Amino acid sequence: MPSEAAAGNRGALAIIAGRGDLPRLIAEATRDAGRPYLVISFAEAPLDWVDDHPHEAHRFEKIGRMFRALKRAGCREVVFAGAMDRPRLRPWAFDAMALRVGSRVLRLLRQGDDAMLRGFGAIFEEEGIRLVAPADCIDGPALTAEPGVLGRLRPEARARGDVARAAEILRALGPVDVGQAAVVAGGVCLGVEAVEGTDALLARIAALPAAKRAHAPPPAGVLLKMPKPGQDRRLDLPAIGPRTVRGAAAAGLAGVAIEAGGVQILDRAATVAAADRAGIFLWSVAPEAL
Amino acid sequence: MPSEAAAGNRGALAIIAGRGDLPRLIAEATRDAGRPYLVISFAEAPLDWVDDHPHEAHRFEKIGRMFRALKRAGCREVVFAGAMDRPRLRPWAFDAMALRVGSRVLRLLRQGDDAMLRGFGAIFEEEGIRLVAPADCIDGPALTAEPGVLGRLRPEARARGDVARAAEILRALGPVDVGQAAVVAGGVCLGVEAVEGTDALLARIAALPAAKRAHAPPPAGVLLKMPKPGQDRRLDLPAIGPRTVRGAAAAGLAGVAIEAGGVQILDRAATVAAADRAGIFLWSVAPEAL
Repeated sequence: MPSEAAAGNRGALAIIAGRGDLPRLIAEATRDAGRPYLVISFAEAPLDWVDDHPHEAHRFEKIGRMFRALKRAGCREVVFAGAMDRPRLRPWAFDAMALRVGSRVLRLLRQGDDAMLRGFGAIFEEEGIRLVAPADCIDGPALTAEPGVLGRLRPEARARGDVARAAEILRALGPVDVGQAAVVAGGVCLGVEAVEGTDALLARIAALPAAKRAHAPPPAGVLLKMPKPGQDRRLDLPAIGPRTVRGAAAAGLAGVAIEAGGVQILDRAATVAAADRAGIFLWSVAPEAL
Repeated sequence: MPSEAAAGNRGALAIIAGRGDLPRLIAEATRDAGRPYLVISFAEAPLDWVDDHPHEAHRFEKIGRMFRALKRAGCREVVFAGAMDRPRLRPWAFDAMALRVGSRVLRLLRQGDDAMLRGFGAIFEEEGIRLVAPADCIDGPALTAEPGVLGRLRPEARARGDVARAAEILRALGPVDVGQAAVVAGGVCLGVEAVEGTDALLARIAALPAAKRAHAPPPAGVLLKMPKPGQDRRLDLPAIGPRTVRGAAAAGLAGVAIEAGGVQILDRAATVAAADRAGIFLWSVAPEAL
């Protein structure tokens, strides 16, 4: 069968698994396709779903041990999926390879997410393991969306203005490698995401005193997520899911906007349904319109 | 006496009073200098200290009434002091002048803080009331600081690196008129301030899960406050005080940095004492070093 032959050519898939649903979805899709794979988690971030899959826990300090395991398993491609926090490294526990790439890794950990992940991706590629995007690992509907209004509600003119303002803010932050999400209401920036994550950003918007939103009382405002300009799209694409949409509704926003083709939608049917149920819009905006 | 003559030439001072200690400090200094003044508060933001001062509460919708009061009181200068939230306007209550400047005001309320305040300042100047900076209204030590380490502790090399990274982030945000504060630890941006205010930013850093800071465990990291590039320094200069320093310590930061000459220090002696007591540094950085 051609798909198995193709899978064979690509070798086994290493899934470097962080938080969220994406790594599990990729593991399930890879298993269902009959392709060999190995899920790698890090002790700092234990996962509750890996018992059903070929899985090894590793430590950043023993990165040489991890690469030996990947080669033993026949991994020729690697996908980074899910959010991962920066680890606390214990240099005294470094193995030989960790010592070799250690100073590079320490430097990477001091950088923005994008620079850090790009650097880690390069280390895998130097070891002969090709970096692939999550979207290349899941069959069926693409993870990212085409341009258009995805749910029942359409954004009003004011919300479109807020999306444009949020895009302007995220574009300004891109070059300094901060921020994949911003919330704007009535032209005013209510919040910018740093390391706290989108759920925490939305929870904080929900908790803002009413006076901070008197100029545009809820429901008003939008959450915009988009990749950073120049971001390596195989790595750490921003993602939304049903929880994002529920959080945006709870924060009194009028809708959620994403860059078409640049933001993953986890469980699109459930995400659209959540938006319709909450009475907010879900708008996938063409990059050239942002 | 020359100072009274000078005060006489400048007429009475209108103090547009928002939240925080600064408007009260200005009112007290103006009273002590024997200069006539009038504190204006807005019903949306009642103040608890104005009973000791000549004071009128006004509404944005009756801006004409406010200007008549200012002229009656002989105000020829105005100072904007303290944080003010954007009001919810009831257009049906607009007086004649509010109707005249109303569309301009509505447009201003949709902009960043700096653009909004600049626009309001222009309306006062068109009415013949000169806009002055808080620092012009308080005698004694200047509100802003000269470059130097203000407390007992000195920033280490790593903290200096974090200050440089925070400055890079705030400079990127300046052109889109967002953000006067950022927190960086170990090179990673832990938070950017939008409308929530510095106290809320620090509270949120204190509540971050330990995993988000594993690369640079507390105490580490800095809060940097600086004005936006090109900001009208008569208006809305960022400010710190003892509470900021206590909040930074509670958030597990190593110190607080401000742009020398660009950030107000409210009650400098108490602020420095709070930093020394908390064991964090307080560093006023020359603009050219940021």
